[in-house]
Order: sequence, then C-alpha cells, then structure tokens
Amino acid sequence: MNVQAPEAAAVEARTDRLVARLAEQGLDCLLVTNLLNVRYLTGFTGTNGACIVTPNERLFVTDFRYVEQAEAQVIGYERVEASRDMLGDLAGRLRGRAGFEDVDVSVAKHAKLEEKLPSGAELVAAGTLVEELREVKDASEVAAMRAATDLADAAYRDMQERGLVGRTEREVAITATRAMVDMGAEGPSFPPIVASGAAGALPHAMPRDVEIPSGVLVVVDMGAKVDGYCSDCTRTFATGPLDGDAREVYELVLRAQEEALAATRAGAEVSAVDGVARAIIEAAGHGERFGHGLGHGVGLEVHEGPRVAKTASGSLEVGNAVTVEPGVYVPGELGVRIEDLVIVTAGEPDVLTGFPKDLVTTD
Amino acid sequence: MNVQAPEAAAVEARTDRLVARLAEQGLDCLLVTNLLNVRYLTGFTGTNGACIVTPNERLFVTDFRYVEQAEAQVIGYERVEASRDMLGDLAGRLRGRAGFEDVDVSVAKHAKLEEKLPSGAELVAAGTLVEELREVKDASEVAAMRAATDLADAAYRDMQERGLVGRTEREVAITATRAMVDMGAEGPSFPPIVASGAAGALPHAMPRDVEIPSGVLVVVDMGAKVDGYCSDCTRTFATGPLDGDAREVYELVLRAQEEALAATRAGAEVSAVDGVARAIIEAAGHGERFGHGLGHGVGLEVHEGPRVAKTASGSLEVGNAVTVEPGVYVPGELGVRIEDLVIVTAGEPDVLTGFPKDLVTTD
Repeated sequence: MNVQAPEAAAVEARTDRLVARLAEQGLDCLLVTNLLNVRYLTGFTGTNGACIVTPNERLFVTDFRYVEQAEAQVIGYERVEASRDMLGDLAGRLRGRAGFEDVDVSVAKHAKLEEKLPSGAELVAAGTLVEELREVKDASEVAAMRAATDLADAAYRDMQERGLVGRTEREVAITATRAMVDMGAEGPSFPPIVASGAAGALPHAMPRDVEIPSGVLVVVDMGAKVDGYCSDCTRTFATGPLDGDAREVYELVLRAQEEALAATRAGAEVSAVDGVARAIIEAAGHGERFGHGLGHGVGLEVHEGPRVAKTASGSLEVGNAVTVEPGVYVPGELGVRIEDLVIVTAGEPDVLTGFPKDLVTTD
Repeated sequence: MNVQAPEAAAVEARTDRLVARLAEQGLDCLLVTNLLNVRYLTGFTGTNGACIVTPNERLFVTDFRYVEQAEAQVIGYERVEASRDMLGDLAGRLRGRAGFEDVDVSVAKHAKLEEKLPSGAELVAAGTLVEELREVKDASEVAAMRAATDLADAAYRDMQERGLVGRTEREVAITATRAMVDMGAEGPSFPPIVASGAAGALPHAMPRDVEIPSGVLVVVDMGAKVDGYCSDCTRTFATGPLDGDAREVYELVLRAQEEALAATRAGAEVSAVDGVARAIIEAAGHGERFGHGLGHGVGLEVHEGPRVAKTASGSLEVGNAVTVEPGVYVPGELGVRIEDLVIVTAGEPDVLTGFPKDLVTTD
C-alpha cells in the first residue's frame, strides 16, 4: 500500500527546518546516521545510508548496493557513493563544529570518526535534533498514519466478527496481523498484544498459547505500518457478561480517556494532559493501578516524542501525533486500556482511530 | 515452538568462558548491555536488561516490568531490580578496569555512565567479547537452529508444491512466512527475498507486486526463528525450461557451493574457504559477478561472526554455524544463489539444510 508520495518541496522543507536549528546550536554541519532520521530527511528507505547537512550543502552517502535505490528515492540531496570505509568517507567531509547524533553513534564508531576527522573539525554531541523535528508531522505523514490506522480499524472489526472465545491469544494476534498485511500494510507496527483475563494486568504481555475464555476482558494493542509510518490502537473487549467490578473499571478508563482526549490540544502541557486522566483514575481509588504515562508520540517509530506523562515537560504543538491511552491494571485479575491515536490541533484533536470505544462484547 | 531448553550448566558455562576472557584482557568486570549478549549469558528474553560479570559475581539488572520474567528465565545470575535510573545503577556497581561494549553503547549512554562511575573505576572499551564467544555454538543452540532450518525446509517444500508461476513475489514471501509461523516458528529470521528473472541479480531485492513468469530463475532466501535462533537458506528455482546459459550458471554455482562445503571444516582459513568457491566461479569467467562473501555466522542474529570472505581473517572452529552461499548475478538478466547452513566439525560439516539443491523446476 502506498498513500500519495510526499511532494518534494515538503520533504525539502524538513531539512530547511534542520538548517535553522543548526544555526541556533552553533553547528557548522550535522552528520545524520540514525536511519529513520535519514529516511525522514531524504526519503531513502534502505538499510545503509547517512547524510551531512550544512547551511549550503546536503549530501547523501550510501554504498554500492543502494545506489540505484537512492537514485529513485532521495529528494533534495546530492548523492555520493561510499568506498568500503563509509564512516571514514563521512568523517573526511565534516568541517568546523560538526554535530553528530550521540544517541545513535556508538563509542566504537565515534572513535573511528575521530580518527578520520580533518584538522580543524570537531565532533560535537548534537542530541536529538532530527527526532525533535519529527515530532511535528506534515500532511504526507498524517496521510500515511491515517491509512495505517484505517487498516488496524478494519482488523479490529474482523476480530470482532470472528469472535474471541476459544481462540488462543497467539492465533488472534497472528490472524489480526495477517488481516492488516492482506489489506496492504507493510507489516504490524509492533508485535500485537492480546491479553485475556489476569494477563491483561501486564501492560507488556506476550500473546500466549492459551484459549480465551468467556466472561473476561481482553486487552488488544496493535497497529499497522504504511509507508514506514505506524499506527497504534488499544481496545479492551469483553467475552460475554462481566461482573460489576470489571464493567466499572472499563467505564472509568473510558471516561478518563475521553476527558484526556478533550484536553489534548496545542499549548497544553503534556504533564497536565496526563494529569486529567490520572486525576479521574486516582479519584476512583485506582491511582496505583495506572502505572504508565498517558501517551507517546508515533510516527516512523511506534514510540517517539513527545512523551505525554506526569514526569515529562513541554507542551503539545499543532501537528504532534500522540496516543491517549490510560489504563487500569488489577494484578491477578484484569486490565483495561483504551488508546486512540490523534493529531494535535489548536482545538479538538483529529482522532485517527475509528473503532468504537464503548465496551464491545464478542463471543 | 520450544525445542528442549538448555541445561543450566550449559548456560552457566558461557559466562565461565567469558570470565576467562576478562582475565586475558586485564578487565576487572564487564558491563554487558547488548540485549542478545544478555540473552546468551543469562537466558533473559525481555527488552530491557543488562548484566555485570566479575570473576566472583554475576549480576543481572532489569526494571520492574521484567522482574517476574527474569525470575522465570535468568540462570546463574543474581537478580537486581533497577531504579528509574538503570544506567546510573549499573555505573555505580562497576569497579576497577570496567569493560563496556563500545560497539553497543552510544556516546550519550557512555557519558551518563562516566558521570555515575565510582571513584577508582575506569571504563574500558572491550570490543565484542561476548559476540566472539557466541561464534561457537553449544548443543542447545544447534538444536534450535536445526529446528528453525527444518521449518524453513518445510516451507520450501510447500512453495514447490504450490508452484510459483502467476503468483506475485510478495504473495510467495508472505505465504512462506506464514507457513513457517503456522508450523511453530516465532517468525521469519529476516524478511524473505523472492526475486524472479532480472530481479534475481540484486542480492538484496525486496519482493515486488509482480507476477512470476514461466521460464525464469527465482532466487528465494529465507529462514525461520526458533527460541531466538535463526536459520538461513537460499534456493534458486526454475519456472519451466531455461535457456542454456541460465542452466549453466546454475550448475556452476552448485559446483562452487558443493566444493566450498567440502572445504568448510575446523582449521580452514575463512579466506581460503571463500577462495574455493571464488576460484571455480572466476575460472568460468564470472568472477566479477560474485560480489559478496561466501558466508557468515548465524545464531541469535542472522548475520554474526565468523565472516567467511576473501577479506576476512581467522580460521573456522568446531561449533561455528556458518552459511555457504556463493552466487552469480548477471545484471539485467538473472541471479543464482545456493545457500546451506552448516555446523563446522573436524571433518565434513553437519549440513542443517535439507531441501534439495539440484535445480527444482516448478510451474
């Protein structure tokens, strides 16, 4: 599946924004080695490539295996074929205060870069400049994430129609993944979680080879990938009538999710948005049972910035793509999590997820 | 699918071998952060964990999410639950000349470790000590790789029965992956390559949405994963009668592969083993068309040590698991690659792959 390719101008604008950041940071150039950052800036999807950005020059470097692919994909960068020593080639082209991605570059690679650095150049840890740009999505990115979310929605509908009782968690996860791929996804955006009954209380449960019984809650967390972009959605199903407690927890989490959603808008502090859901869950006496942040950014990675949590700082911006996913986990009993993926606007968020959030009961 | 779990003593022996290496390197301890290395040493399969090995102490550290899993999996290590600052916790426990995995640790993480290092301790780049141990497989590792290879063999048989003509490369790749998972694989060991006709000349071709015609060669490269261990196998099919050239190239590659296989034994220099296949292909005038190394190690990663190539050094050891995969790629026309996965012994290699290597023709 290919949604409409981004316009060249929109891709080039990403590097324009980066060049502005370089000036702010007092950097003469930036060596970009994180492959997702390279993809974001250049359009290149291969598994070996890097780029060097200066105010006046944009170089993309890859090895002989990817020369043809780069020719077809790379936008707005001069293309250079690397020798066998690609790291050395890159180092040799750095000048002045040369930023590098210290979160990506290993100590061993850094040592090799240092060795081949021209005199006068200096390697400067530049943190996560490109990751920060990626937090604000442009139109083609939103389109890809919307397409990915639609595929996951369809897989949820298929799951509801097939029912859950008597199927193993593992088979449900595999079938849902296959449904997304059959409809055109590149793959799942992460290995799906299907966790029934008490397993639902483990936020990172792996699907088991156990049959799903009736009368329990089942947490399903999954997403699709389209054009490299991820979706992320959690729904909690019921497999038949529930006792009062489980239903109550569900309604609590749903209310917390909807209130947090209403608070998710440009200018809101991320800790305050988390606080909206947390306050509702705490007031109901379940504060200790919501042991993770409210949400996270999504894009080329299923977990990226901004983080929406009590311990995070900063405010939401127009174009952020974040999840809103409160949960309550009662150890040994059950878990409930409800998660939408939204695009932040100045007003109501643009909710990409379409599958219903009222408790869906399926046999 | 779970093959027989390794015996505790066999797992503990891995760290014993590591302790001996530490002494040779003059290290007082080693911080192991590469998750596959952590898995190899401790048995832990979660996504956040690290260990510290000293001659007298073996510590495994993870966060609250993985405490239960660690309790069930970790063998031979004292378990410690990390605070929110796991990297700081680890740094605080390092003493003396403290090795770290400089190929794994980013410059940013290294800076954080330095900050929390106790006085008197010193971080020392320790290269790839655990990766080197991993190059020699023990019995449980071989068993897992044999099981993974058997699954891929079965998927090849299924592919042959279904036929190839008129199916898209992408659908063939998806169906084969599903066959392996349905039979019990954790997943494919890498995204399968299915490359027909001229696409076969690109060693890293991605499966396309194009139908496979009759009368061409189709390169299929795939493997399964069982208990974390990978298999890797390439076969080249014919979809109907071929012209003389294609058939000749196939027979040449097969001969090169079989001769290289016979040379694959403990004590042989890896460059010499590569040279056996390369000499045969060069003598036939196709030297320029075999543009990659003969093979590579396989284990927890589908590409690991030892590398079997013209430019590699060192000799094979008993227990190495390596591929033997010569290829000839005629640009714009066709590709042929034939790959077995073998365990190195003092004599004939133990060939794990079972699917036939004579040219299989399938419609």
